[in-house]
Amino acid sequence: MNAFNVAEYMQALGLQARAASAQMAKASARAKNTALRALARRLREAGEPLAQANALDLARAEAAGLAAPMVDRLRLTPKVIETVAQGCEQLAAMPDVIGDIVGLKEQPSGIRVGQMRVPIGVFGMIYESRPNVTIEAASLAIKSGNAAILRGGSEAIDSNKALAQMVRAALAEAGLPEDAVQLVATTDREAVGQLIAMPAFVDVIIPRGGKGLIERISASAKVPVIKHLDGNCHTYVDDTADLDMAVVVVDNAKTQKYSPCNATEGLLVARGVAAAFLPRIGAVFAAKGVEMRCDAEAAALLEGLAGQPRIVPASEQDWFEEYLAPVISIKVVAGLDEAIAHINHYSSHHTDAILTRDHVNAQRFLREVDSASVMVNASTRFADGFEYGLGAEIGISTDKFHARGPVGIEGLTSLKYVVLGQGEIRS
Amino acid sequence: MNAFNVAEYMQALGLQARAASAQMAKASARAKNTALRALARRLREAGEPLAQANALDLARAEAAGLAAPMVDRLRLTPKVIETVAQGCEQLAAMPDVIGDIVGLKEQPSGIRVGQMRVPIGVFGMIYESRPNVTIEAASLAIKSGNAAILRGGSEAIDSNKALAQMVRAALAEAGLPEDAVQLVATTDREAVGQLIAMPAFVDVIIPRGGKGLIERISASAKVPVIKHLDGNCHTYVDDTADLDMAVVVVDNAKTQKYSPCNATEGLLVARGVAAAFLPRIGAVFAAKGVEMRCDAEAAALLEGLAGQPRIVPASEQDWFEEYLAPVISIKVVAGLDEAIAHINHYSSHHTDAILTRDHVNAQRFLREVDSASVMVNASTRFADGFEYGLGAEIGISTDKFHARGPVGIEGLTSLKYVVLGQGEIRS
Repeated sequence: MNAFNVAEYMQALGLQARAASAQMAKASARAKNTALRALARRLREAGEPLAQANALDLARAEAAGLAAPMVDRLRLTPKVIETVAQGCEQLAAMPDVIGDIVGLKEQPSGIRVGQMRVPIGVFGMIYESRPNVTIEAASLAIKSGNAAILRGGSEAIDSNKALAQMVRAALAEAGLPEDAVQLVATTDREAVGQLIAMPAFVDVIIPRGGKGLIERISASAKVPVIKHLDGNCHTYVDDTADLDMAVVVVDNAKTQKYSPCNATEGLLVARGVAAAFLPRIGAVFAAKGVEMRCDAEAAALLEGLAGQPRIVPASEQDWFEEYLAPVISIKVVAGLDEAIAHINHYSSHHTDAILTRDHVNAQRFLREVDSASVMVNASTRFADGFEYGLGAEIGISTDKFHARGPVGIEGLTSLKYVVLGQGEIRS
Repeated sequence: MNAFNVAEYMQALGLQARAASAQMAKASARAKNTALRALARRLREAGEPLAQANALDLARAEAAGLAAPMVDRLRLTPKVIETVAQGCEQLAAMPDVIGDIVGLKEQPSGIRVGQMRVPIGVFGMIYESRPNVTIEAASLAIKSGNAAILRGGSEAIDSNKALAQMVRAALAEAGLPEDAVQLVATTDREAVGQLIAMPAFVDVIIPRGGKGLIERISASAKVPVIKHLDGNCHTYVDDTADLDMAVVVVDNAKTQKYSPCNATEGLLVARGVAAAFLPRIGAVFAAKGVEMRCDAEAAALLEGLAGQPRIVPASEQDWFEEYLAPVISIKVVAGLDEAIAHINHYSSHHTDAILTRDHVNAQRFLREVDSASVMVNASTRFADGFEYGLGAEIGISTDKFHARGPVGIEGLTSLKYVVLGQGEIRS
C-alpha cells in the first residue's frame, strides 16, 4: 500500500456511503430486517474462514506480546458470535421507527404539521480491539436506515475484514446497497483524520474508546461527535434512605463490575444516617478489598472496622476521579443541597443516583442534578441501552446536544417537519 | 475601553451565565411567566428613556449614511414594541415543558425509565441590527429555563442596552437571577471570538445573519452551532396536481414576500402538465415582474406570453441559487423521480413542497426528500415556528443534528434519562 492515497480512498468511501444512504433511507422495514436475519445466519455458518481470519489477528497480537486480556478481547469465540448473531435477530424483531410521523396537529392556517423520523445519513464509527463491535455497528446502521463507515482497531483488521464481507453479502441478499456498511480497509492512522473531516459525506462521528481518543477526535472533527467521556458516577444516601436497600444498591453500584463507566465512583452519605450506614457498607467494601478514599468525617465513622479495611484520606482530585477499579471516594454531606452541589461540581454528568424515601427530595434530585441519567433507588449500573429498553446501544453520550445518555436507534435519527395541506397559502 | 480586556470580560459573563443557568433550570413556571409578563409591562411603559436610546442608534446610523431600509430595521416604533410585548405574553401563556417526563416505561428489571425535558444550559446568540431580537431571545431564554448571552449588532448597541436593562429588572421582579440574560456591552469584535470558544460556559451558539457570518462562526466555534444557512426552497408541480391550486400556491410561495428564507426559489414542473401549467404561472410572474430563469423546455413553453415577461436561460448555478428577489428558476422534469433527485442535489435542505393529488407520490416525496421541512399541497412560506405552532422561534436549523427546521422552546432543551426504582440492582 505504498502508492496508496489515503485521502482519495476515504473520499471514495464517503461518496459511496452517501449514495448508499439515500437508498437505505427509503429501504423498507422488510428489506432491512431480511438483511439483519441474513447476517445472523451468515455469522453462525461462518465457520473456518472467519476462524482463520481471527487466528491471524490473535497470532499477531501474541507475537507482539499483548497482555492476555487484550488478546482475549480479540477472540471470536462461538459464544461471542452467537451473542452478536442474536443481537442482529433482536434488532430485526424490533419495530422500525423510520418514517414514523409524530405530533401531527392542525394549525390555525389549516395546514397539519408533524415530524417524521428519518435517518441521520452517514455515521462514522471509530473503535478499538473487539471485532464484535463491527457487527453491532453494522446492524444498528442497517436497522436505522443509515450508511456507516467503520474504522476498527488495527489489531482486529483481519477479523473485521471477514466480518465486513459477511455484512456486504447480507445486504446484497436483501437487495440493499453493499456500500451501506463499509470497513476502512487500511490501518493507516491518516484514515481517521480524513473520516472526521468529510462533512459532505459523514454526518456524525461516534468514537468508542478512552477519554484521550475521544477528546482528540472532538478537537479536530469537522462534523458533530457523539461524545462519551468519563463516567464519574455518584450514589447519594439520603437521610430517609432504607439502609438495608442502600447497602445492597451501593454494593451493586460499586462492586458488581469495576470497569464499566456506569459503576459508582463516589459515595455521598447524609450526616443523619452516616453513623448507622457507613460501618455497614464499609464492612462490605472491606470484605471485597475495595479501597475507601474518605473525607475526615467518613474516615472517623469507619474507624474500627473488622478485617483489613483500606481507608485512605481523599484528596480534592479524588472527587473528580473515575477509578474503574476497586476504589471508591466517600464523603459525608449535610443533606440534599450539599449532595446536589457536590455532584453538579465533580460528577462527569453521566449517571447519578439518590437513595431516599422522601418524595420531595427524590423529585428535586431528578430535576436539579445535571446528568444524562438521574436515578432514584436504583443501581447506577442500570445506565445502559439494553436496560433502558432501547434494544441496542451504539454508545452513551455525556453531551447535552442531540443525544444524551445511552444512544440507541433514535440517536441515529433526526426529525424533519412534515406539512400536509390542501392548497393553503400564507397571508 | 482601552485597558479593557475582552477575554476577561467575556469569561466573567460566562461564569455569571453558568451560575444563573442553574437557578433558571429549577425556576418554577410561575416565576418565569411572571418575569415574562413584567417584561411586557415594562416594554409598554418604557416611554422616553427607551426612545432616547433608540434615537442615539438612529442618529448614528443616519450620520454613517446607512440606507433607509437599514435605518428602519433599527427603529423601535410603538408597533414594534407592542409586537414584542405581546410575544412575551404569548410565551407566558404557553405550557411550561421543562420538567415534563415522557415515555416512562417499566423494564424487565423492574426499574421504570423515562426522559425528562431540561434546559440546555446557556446559549449564546449572535445577531444583527434589529433590536427587537434582543427581547425575542431574552423571552425564549426565560421561558425555556436557560441563561443567555446576547451579542447584538453594534448599530443597535444603545437600544439593546436599554432593552437588556428592562429584562434584568423583569427578572429581578420575579425573583429570578438578573444574569440569566446578559447583553455583551462592548462592540469589540473580539467578543464574538470569545463567546463561541467558551465550552465551559456556553452550551450552544445560535447565529442569526447572512450565510457568510454563520459559516465563519461554525468554522471556529468550539461548541455546537444551530446553523441556519441558506433557503433554496423548491415547489414541484406533479402530474396530478390541481392546476388552479398550483397557480395560487406557487404564486404565494414565490411572491408573497421575496426576502424570507422559506420563499420558493426553484419551480419544477412535471412534463405531463408543463404545457398546461407554465403559461398560467408565467403570466402571473410576468405581471409581477418576476424574472424566470428557465431550462430550454420551460422557456419554449413560456414563449408568446403577453406583456414583457423576463425569460432568461438558466445556468447550472441557478439551480443552487437562493435569490431572495423577484427571480425564480424553472425546470421541466420527467416526473417525481427526477424532481426528488434534483431537489436532493440542488436544494439547501430547508423546505421543499410537492403539489399533487397522488397519495403514493405525496408519501414518497415526504419520505425521500432530505429537507428540514417537506410539504404537500402548501406554500413553502409556511416553514416558520409560529405557523408550525411552536409559539416562538429562535431560528431555523438547516442541520440534521439536534434541531432541524424551525427551532422553538424544545430546540433549547435536552432530554435526560430518569430511572425510578425500588432498590433494583444489576445482575
